Amino acid sequence: MTCGFDSAILVVHGGAGTITAESLAEGRADLFHSGLNAALAAGWDIWKSGGGSVDMVCAAVRVLEDDPLFNAGRGSVLNTEGRVEMDAAVMRGGDRAAGAVAGIAGIRHPVLAARAVMEHSPHVFIVGDGAVRFALGQGCEPASEDWFATEHRVSQWRRQHAAGTTSLSEDNHFGTVGAAGRDRAGRLAAATSTGGMTNKQVGRVGDAPVIGAGTWADDATIAISATGHGEYFLRAGVAHAIHARMELLGQSGDEAAAEVVEGRLHSMGGEGGVVGLTSTGRGVWSFNCSGMYRGVLFEDGRRMTAILREGP
Amino acid sequence: MTCGFDSAILVVHGGAGTITAESLAEGRADLFHSGLNAALAAGWDIWKSGGGSVDMVCAAVRVLEDDPLFNAGRGSVLNTEGRVEMDAAVMRGGDRAAGAVAGIAGIRHPVLAARAVMEHSPHVFIVGDGAVRFALGQGCEPASEDWFATEHRVSQWRRQHAAGTTSLSEDNHFGTVGAAGRDRAGRLAAATSTGGMTNKQVGRVGDAPVIGAGTWADDATIAISATGHGEYFLRAGVAHAIHARMELLGQSGDEAAAEVVEGRLHSMGGEGGVVGLTSTGRGVWSFNCSGMYRGVLFEDGRRMTAILREGP
Repeated sequence: MTCGFDSAILVVHGGAGTITAESLAEGRADLFHSGLNAALAAGWDIWKSGGGSVDMVCAAVRVLEDDPLFNAGRGSVLNTEGRVEMDAAVMRGGDRAAGAVAGIAGIRHPVLAARAVMEHSPHVFIVGDGAVRFALGQGCEPASEDWFATEHRVSQWRRQHAAGTTSLSEDNHFGTVGAAGRDRAGRLAAATSTGGMTNKQVGRVGDAPVIGAGTWADDATIAISATGHGEYFLRAGVAHAIHARMELLGQSGDEAAAEVVEGRLHSMGGEGGVVGLTSTGRGVWSFNCSGMYRGVLFEDGRRMTAILREGP
Repeated sequence: MTCGFDSAILVVHGGAGTITAESLAEGRADLFHSGLNAALAAGWDIWKSGGGSVDMVCAAVRVLEDDPLFNAGRGSVLNTEGRVEMDAAVMRGGDRAAGAVAGIAGIRHPVLAARAVMEHSPHVFIVGDGAVRFALGQGCEPASEDWFATEHRVSQWRRQHAAGTTSLSEDNHFGTVGAAGRDRAGRLAAATSTGGMTNKQVGRVGDAPVIGAGTWADDATIAISATGHGEYFLRAGVAHAIHARMELLGQSGDEAAAEVVEGRLHSMGGEGGVVGLTSTGRGVWSFNCSGMYRGVLFEDGRRMTAILREGP
């Protein structure tokens, strides 16, 4: 399903996939709504004080990284060796500046490591220990392995590792988090952060930190953050494909996102979704699976969050 | 400049940038022509025996990786710690299957590591030690640090490291190698391999292994391998942008490559170029700098190589 909203200033997601009513029982749905609302509130604080869109999306993603419910930062899933390896990216629409990190550990907020790459290095993409050292040198907050690996993720990993399966998670739920934002000056930004797939091979990188696949922003078109089965998002070039349809065909954000996510990506077998925000203030979400943890913030401060295929 | 050629089956490059007549003196131009011809000949052997396009591009790139003249495999430049870190990708146009590795060392042919990821893992992109271990487990040939770090690169690194500069190379020359190929069945493939920037930060990844930036293939449009200042290619989504113009606007490969490389990329300040091959057998090269080491192979076995802005 694809929905669009006028006068939006921030759209966030906390993952997508097969989300059953059962997995939302016992108050869990409330926890997700609350986590998404906290991310939108962080963006609202920035907007109110006249902050920029990069600040807005980073603030929202930080909140989701700290929330152990979501697979990013604290609460990241574990790779086949039982360790956390995180990926993140940020992109600024005005000049298409971008920063990304992949395969990092020990940094509390990977999105801020990505931002440091964008703002303080001559590079766009840094991976592994080199990225960790760079981020620490830039003042990014360190955190121990214990901070990231929650009890829930460790027991999830033990079960999957014993079974020898590499799945995106036990319930086919893709836990990337991300945000697309627009500031008072109409400038766009997008940010994405993830712990990747449970029990993934060491060093596996999905679409989240890949500029043009999981993250993209151009003030002339749209800011996009994606979540889903990353391998398909890479092969479909999802974020850039949405941008290209707007730039080259003059499609709206709603049309472009629907054609790529519900059309091409779905036909390739790729499950997941995106959130986007256009330069005209049109917020968009689009997904081809049973649900996506998502929320939208409007210029007047109203917020809305949703999980299953409920309407706007 | 942008040129197109009908009845092409393989187009290769060995880097682009500011190439002066001086840097080609004393027989060096002959060495580059000879290296490019050897890569085309390797592709020709595969074509003659009815092999597929993935085999063709991998065979051509392997030859360039082994040639110490080019910045990929043997002859890779060194990072700020004086070590080799290589990146590579391969993509198959029929189903957009793709494989990529980044930040690897100790594997003689990074392009074959990328191919192993594509063909033998559930993933598209693996970085660092995890990628090295996976490649070795798949039977990729190991090689010692001595194999890669030639005397020329070590002395180049010593000078730059002492000067504290991070440049793409002393002469602003971008030494990525790559190929785009088409087999008898009309199937496309692209492959790219690089040692990155001289004196780069540890873990820095450019566009070469990023699907949609430095490497792309879709049988409906074009196979692309790029070379240049990777950060700009990432921010411009170069390879996917060329594909999108063909898919959405019906542009030819020549038009699309020229608009992206000589247009958008150039206006952003990004120097470099691409080689491409369309499903109709149109070979293309396009670059916005003084030269690109390049060559094309035709169905009848004819080969042509060029370096500066000389015509076809």
